[in-house]
Amino acid sequence: MSWQATILTLFPELFPGPLGASVLGRAAAEGLWALDTVNIRDFSDNKYGSVDDTPAGGGAGLVMRADILAHAIDSVARNDRPIVCLTPRGKPFSQARARSLAAGPGLIALCGRFEGIDERLFDARDVEEVSIGDFVLAGGEIPAMALIEACVRLIPGVLGSASSLGEESFEGGLLEYPQYTRPREFEGRAIPDVLLGGDHQKIAAWRREKRQEITRTRRPDLWERFSSDGPIRRSDNKEPK
Amino acid sequence: MSWQATILTLFPELFPGPLGASVLGRAAAEGLWALDTVNIRDFSDNKYGSVDDTPAGGGAGLVMRADILAHAIDSVARNDRPIVCLTPRGKPFSQARARSLAAGPGLIALCGRFEGIDERLFDARDVEEVSIGDFVLAGGEIPAMALIEACVRLIPGVLGSASSLGEESFEGGLLEYPQYTRPREFEGRAIPDVLLGGDHQKIAAWRREKRQEITRTRRPDLWERFSSDGPIRRSDNKEPK
Repeated sequence: MSWQATILTLFPELFPGPLGASVLGRAAAEGLWALDTVNIRDFSDNKYGSVDDTPAGGGAGLVMRADILAHAIDSVARNDRPIVCLTPRGKPFSQARARSLAAGPGLIALCGRFEGIDERLFDARDVEEVSIGDFVLAGGEIPAMALIEACVRLIPGVLGSASSLGEESFEGGLLEYPQYTRPREFEGRAIPDVLLGGDHQKIAAWRREKRQEITRTRRPDLWERFSSDGPIRRSDNKEPK
Repeated sequence: MSWQATILTLFPELFPGPLGASVLGRAAAEGLWALDTVNIRDFSDNKYGSVDDTPAGGGAGLVMRADILAHAIDSVARNDRPIVCLTPRGKPFSQARARSLAAGPGLIALCGRFEGIDERLFDARDVEEVSIGDFVLAGGEIPAMALIEACVRLIPGVLGSASSLGEESFEGGLLEYPQYTRPREFEGRAIPDVLLGGDHQKIAAWRREKRQEITRTRRPDLWERFSSDGPIRRSDNKEPK
């Protein structure tokens, strides 16, 4: 069984979309992962195909109904996969969570629209609310794509050279070091000498120092965690509390 | 002039994609915003169409060249728009930043691929590195979609009822209250009585309390900022430091 993403959405035609391009598209063609969609509207109980209703207690907009979403969820073979709902009220998604999801059988992603989803669904179907960031979108489709792309690229075999995973941002709790390539001089800006000197120990030391410097100046929150925990090795990288 | 998003990408065919659906698609059709793409590959200087090269100092993968990206950027009419590059090394994107971008003329989004972008470009072209979250993706296309969707839905006229913006997550520094709709009972779970009682003051008080409770339990970091600053009114909502 390959890693499987099932998307519950009112816009199944948006998938795979960006998830079908480039390295992820090739990996799907090779059978390393697969994506299927469920159209929530197919579970409407009325001739208008509506899946929402006005909020109890009043307010603007419409709320997606728990009973209809429960039927849509129940139509999917769960296969021990977590059900995640993309919402700014959720737990912040992280690289550590991407790694744990990538190591599992896949996921079921519920994409909300309108003002939100009837709260009772989350408990009734063990739906985990997950947020990709502190901003509000028009629906869960784009954040579901982000979450799935973050997971799929970590599935063994999806990226050509596994070695490039080891030094990217968040590995070891730090942001990535700066990259340079030719030309040697670009608009009066040179590539740092150390990178052209061929001394691999010096290069590694320079890159380590740059990772720390960039993390410290740009993300004091990550730096604080890094300097209190010490470098976290990939194998024991935990999700933030 | 409507709000304009210009995307520099190796995958222009992925746009508008999800940004063409639903409320954002309708708003584009009404001329409230517009999207155009620039194919970075058109600025390659070689017959292979390549835009990248091996990293100075060694390492896995390929780095996008500063000179080629600078030519691609220089082909775009800037019109006072910021140039943002989506990368996990960037400044965390926020709802406050979405509001300030939505109030401006638009943005130019540079979508990286491969191991990253030659560092010299950022300074040479005043490119602002922006992150949508602490996870790594295969490219900047999906986070550019997230950033643009967050901005466009805040452009006046894009969402039907502006009133629904006032109570969503991050407005006033809090997450959103729980929503309910019919049926009144769902699998033994009732809608909270207060929401069915018709007392609008009680409903407003219950929702305020729930927003605080949810923020406190789920996001101690947001709660700490909320309780130290006091409620932030929309008009003076600032970007986090």
